[in-house]
Amino acid sequence: MSKLGPISGFPEWLPAQRMAEQYLLQKIQRTFELFGFAPIETRAIEPLSVLLSKGDDKEIYVIKRLHEDADAPDEKWGLHFDLTVPFARYVQEFRHQLHFPFKRYQIQKVWRGERKQEGRYREFYQCDIDVVGQGHLSVSYDAEMPILLHQVLAQLPIPAVKIKLNNRKLLEGFYRGLGIENFTQVLRIIDKLAKIGADRVVGLLISELHLSDENAQKCLLLGQIKSDDLSFIAEVEQLGVQHPLMIEGLAELTQVMRACDVLPPGSIEVDLSIARGLDYYTGSVYEGVMLGHEHIGAVCSGGRYDNLIASDHKQQGFPGIGVSIGITRILGYLLGRNLLQMSRSTPVAVMIILPDEAARTEAQRVAFRLRERGISTDIYHQPQNFGKQMQSAQKRGIPYVWFMGDVPQVKNLHTGIQQPASIDTWQPEACYEKLTITLTRS
Amino acid sequence: MSKLGPISGFPEWLPAQRMAEQYLLQKIQRTFELFGFAPIETRAIEPLSVLLSKGDDKEIYVIKRLHEDADAPDEKWGLHFDLTVPFARYVQEFRHQLHFPFKRYQIQKVWRGERKQEGRYREFYQCDIDVVGQGHLSVSYDAEMPILLHQVLAQLPIPAVKIKLNNRKLLEGFYRGLGIENFTQVLRIIDKLAKIGADRVVGLLISELHLSDENAQKCLLLGQIKSDDLSFIAEVEQLGVQHPLMIEGLAELTQVMRACDVLPPGSIEVDLSIARGLDYYTGSVYEGVMLGHEHIGAVCSGGRYDNLIASDHKQQGFPGIGVSIGITRILGYLLGRNLLQMSRSTPVAVMIILPDEAARTEAQRVAFRLRERGISTDIYHQPQNFGKQMQSAQKRGIPYVWFMGDVPQVKNLHTGIQQPASIDTWQPEACYEKLTITLTRS
Repeated sequence: MSKLGPISGFPEWLPAQRMAEQYLLQKIQRTFELFGFAPIETRAIEPLSVLLSKGDDKEIYVIKRLHEDADAPDEKWGLHFDLTVPFARYVQEFRHQLHFPFKRYQIQKVWRGERKQEGRYREFYQCDIDVVGQGHLSVSYDAEMPILLHQVLAQLPIPAVKIKLNNRKLLEGFYRGLGIENFTQVLRIIDKLAKIGADRVVGLLISELHLSDENAQKCLLLGQIKSDDLSFIAEVEQLGVQHPLMIEGLAELTQVMRACDVLPPGSIEVDLSIARGLDYYTGSVYEGVMLGHEHIGAVCSGGRYDNLIASDHKQQGFPGIGVSIGITRILGYLLGRNLLQMSRSTPVAVMIILPDEAARTEAQRVAFRLRERGISTDIYHQPQNFGKQMQSAQKRGIPYVWFMGDVPQVKNLHTGIQQPASIDTWQPEACYEKLTITLTRS
Repeated sequence: MSKLGPISGFPEWLPAQRMAEQYLLQKIQRTFELFGFAPIETRAIEPLSVLLSKGDDKEIYVIKRLHEDADAPDEKWGLHFDLTVPFARYVQEFRHQLHFPFKRYQIQKVWRGERKQEGRYREFYQCDIDVVGQGHLSVSYDAEMPILLHQVLAQLPIPAVKIKLNNRKLLEGFYRGLGIENFTQVLRIIDKLAKIGADRVVGLLISELHLSDENAQKCLLLGQIKSDDLSFIAEVEQLGVQHPLMIEGLAELTQVMRACDVLPPGSIEVDLSIARGLDYYTGSVYEGVMLGHEHIGAVCSGGRYDNLIASDHKQQGFPGIGVSIGITRILGYLLGRNLLQMSRSTPVAVMIILPDEAARTEAQRVAFRLRERGISTDIYHQPQNFGKQMQSAQKRGIPYVWFMGDVPQVKNLHTGIQQPASIDTWQPEACYEKLTITLTRS
């Protein structure tokens, strides 16, 4: 019977949990649309050559027909492991049919052949937005990303998310100003700051990259700068390093921070230790953590990539910027710890009590009319005593039951109030109409 | 550059087309919920043993990690080729946590390793609803399915769909009444009636199944019965065959047809040639075709399966019934023939005209406020002459542009009317607020 059990890393939810997931996804989608992002989906598979150009090959699932035949494709296909690589391919493929700057959102599942580990998913949702320009992309989009992330996440029934900002140009310019050339190696080590601490970071910079003690200290000091206002500018300047790329990065980060003034205090901070692993980031980088639950890692992240999408014209590339929300990581964590309470496990707002089999035709007529009026309605499946029928509705979180008769009555199972109702005018009260989700503690 | 091209059978849409797909899927989902179906999703993969027990092995895509290692699973996995088989596995797995009858809907992509062929998809959406009972499932659910199908499809901007009903018990009982035992073989041949015609069907029944001329004729006559009222009862009885299973099927079909009285004339018909290929159907079967476009085949189908889901208790199984809407087949066909006109390629309802770079901060403030009020807003990406900016908005189907100033103005690009507007009160007119889809001819 093992074939019936769960498969590690491929989560499946019960209806109430799936309703919570849908609730979150719909809120996210709605906000993406408010900001003017248009939807696309890409196919689940990409040619292996496309996937391997940007990803870690160990994570890729390849697919093939169980019985391959002469019709077999020349090239191998794999399931996509993120939505950025397929999106870059999509933009190249459809570039003559798209309007630039192209703002798109994409909410799909992705697959990664990770080792079994708690909190690691092999199939999970990503919610991505990206803006891609033709030739040029204003820094104002760098500022739009954290604002949008905040707006999306602040309305969800999840712990508060703090968004951290940095800029790769600032870091790279700083390192170059110190005469360090292997920029990405420094980044990789600085990125471990939160995990392994300052001393070990300095140690690694000296032992692995042969930095001087002074330079290693300066790299550390830069990585330790955090601020929720513009004070980071003076702190960087105090370190006395000069480089044009650093100045450019500092100016961009300043512009982004200024634009984030519209957000409530505490929702955003500059954190110069944030580097993000991906090679293709070239400017702004972002990452968000749930306050009080930082140990689960980033729940959203992204950045600017000026050279990811290849172009026919060398002089005119497709610079882009985007962020991704890891909704499965958030939801899996909260559901796994029972931190979310869903008010029901069905969309049904009212269940019609079925007194006997003869009444079924009338029940169907009532249901037909209520549904026509936009009220999610069900009929109890068999005649049974009313107490049992009401109990069943209550178990599933259905807020109302309907008693047929010359004068129909509706009972609110939360308040116990029962009163006459007409199929042509009755409406569930707003607070009982739809699923509600409560974050029990955080 | 071949890696950038499309992959046969894996459709990808442009933003306007994806918006149309989302529009259809949301209407479908909403109606499923009105009828009291709760959402679930199942993982994309199933153990191969689960898939092979119900499917055609040629169609299955197996997946494996590019670099398998010691951590490799004992059992092979494949991508699901429908949503019924995963749902049956889900019900068995979670049966102690579900409420029965369990009404669920599931809207997900499925994958089939089909040969390349026009109109055949290898990755496509299925929209499924099913009801599963524990021990017993009332025939009233058999009637709910075609009513729901009609309600869902009639509201979509697609050609009218006619739903055809039949009942496997009626057919099986009739054949058994004639002394024919290889029931499924007869079904397989009768199912070809529309394709190959009456003469060849009779020929096959005689040559392949060795039926007598009289019995073959009776099977044909039964298969030719069609009616949009209850006249099919008399027509079946006239054929003079008696069998308890036939009586039972006839009664069920009558009950379903009676309940469908609430639907408009012409939306439904009994068609005793409909058999549906799947072995597991045991009673009602359904199939829907788009009027005027019958050649693309069924766009929705389903039926009752009393024995698909295995049970621990031999005396108490999980009888089920369900239908599936093939939205990719419908949409791919309509889009491929340019039969659908979408009003826009972005959710943006109003675009703010950007006079110069200095005005960007104010533009962001206006956008922030309009979005806060639920209006999808974008800012033109660079200062340019107003004509160009308006042209760009028009190309993407954005209905309004916003001119900042002491007295802000809004221009409706459809009507040409321009008037003063306040960021605190302005609303797009209802007819321009959202995407509209027009079926151009059908």
